[in-house]
Amino acid sequence: MAHELTENTRSPQGPVVELSDAESWDFLGGRNRGHVGLSDNHMPDIYPVNYVCDDHTIVFRTAEGSKLRELAHNRHVVFEVDAESEGGVWSVVVRGRAVSLDVDRIFREEALEALPPWVPTEPFVYMRIAPDAVRGRLLQHHVLIGHSG
Amino acid sequence: MAHELTENTRSPQGPVVELSDAESWDFLGGRNRGHVGLSDNHMPDIYPVNYVCDDHTIVFRTAEGSKLRELAHNRHVVFEVDAESEGGVWSVVVRGRAVSLDVDRIFREEALEALPPWVPTEPFVYMRIAPDAVRGRLLQHHVLIGHSG
Repeated sequence: MAHELTENTRSPQGPVVELSDAESWDFLGGRNRGHVGLSDNHMPDIYPVNYVCDDHTIVFRTAEGSKLRELAHNRHVVFEVDAESEGGVWSVVVRGRAVSLDVDRIFREEALEALPPWVPTEPFVYMRIAPDAVRGRLLQHHVLIGHSG
Repeated sequence: MAHELTENTRSPQGPVVELSDAESWDFLGGRNRGHVGLSDNHMPDIYPVNYVCDDHTIVFRTAEGSKLRELAHNRHVVFEVDAESEGGVWSVVVRGRAVSLDVDRIFREEALEALPPWVPTEPFVYMRIAPDAVRGRLLQHHVLIGHSG
């Protein structure tokens, strides 16, 4: 999960400040809405999801039998969260694989209680993304959205 | 670009309200930050970008020679924008292909002026996503993030 710590480097979107792993997880832990990215036979897809952080993994919920569940299970996924602040736009990207929590013995019920209640009759499953890599960046405001810094 | 107009259907994330194409483009036109999703040899990736809408296409900027440009050019891409409102979370997904605007004769300078200024010395290109399909949804608040509706 190591990444290079460099300040004011260039990204595809311009100069950025790289975040440490700790800063990236702090950011992820303070948000609840992110984007799961999948690749299905070279066709990319993005799903907005609610999530919680659990011991440096990402847990989200989806419907039983949904395309998201089928595609994410045992495949490479990317998970991205971003948010605007005074200093710029924070973006953290987690790469890893998703597993269904109904077969995951490391299930932590207390963490999952933070996920909001669902329609009671809706069948659903929880999925966990175990990260291979995490990269957090602060895309500076004056660069990303044109405000003077 | 047609999609089925159904209310209160089920999505992977629960009940949703489907938006019309016009509603979807209205939403896209009122925002400026989205997510480009790519697939690189079965590995998904997500990039946060600033964008403008131009005649029912999405225009965003990236660095010359960036991975985003290389991957997006002549490949299937997905573009997603979401935002929270009182009624829930709006999410619009555009599927299509990206082309570099330096080879696009339909370049519209007036629309591009809405994109924020960049670091003057940074070489960059504009890319346009021509949509094959657009799908907009309102993920109802009491379902997506647990507030009672």
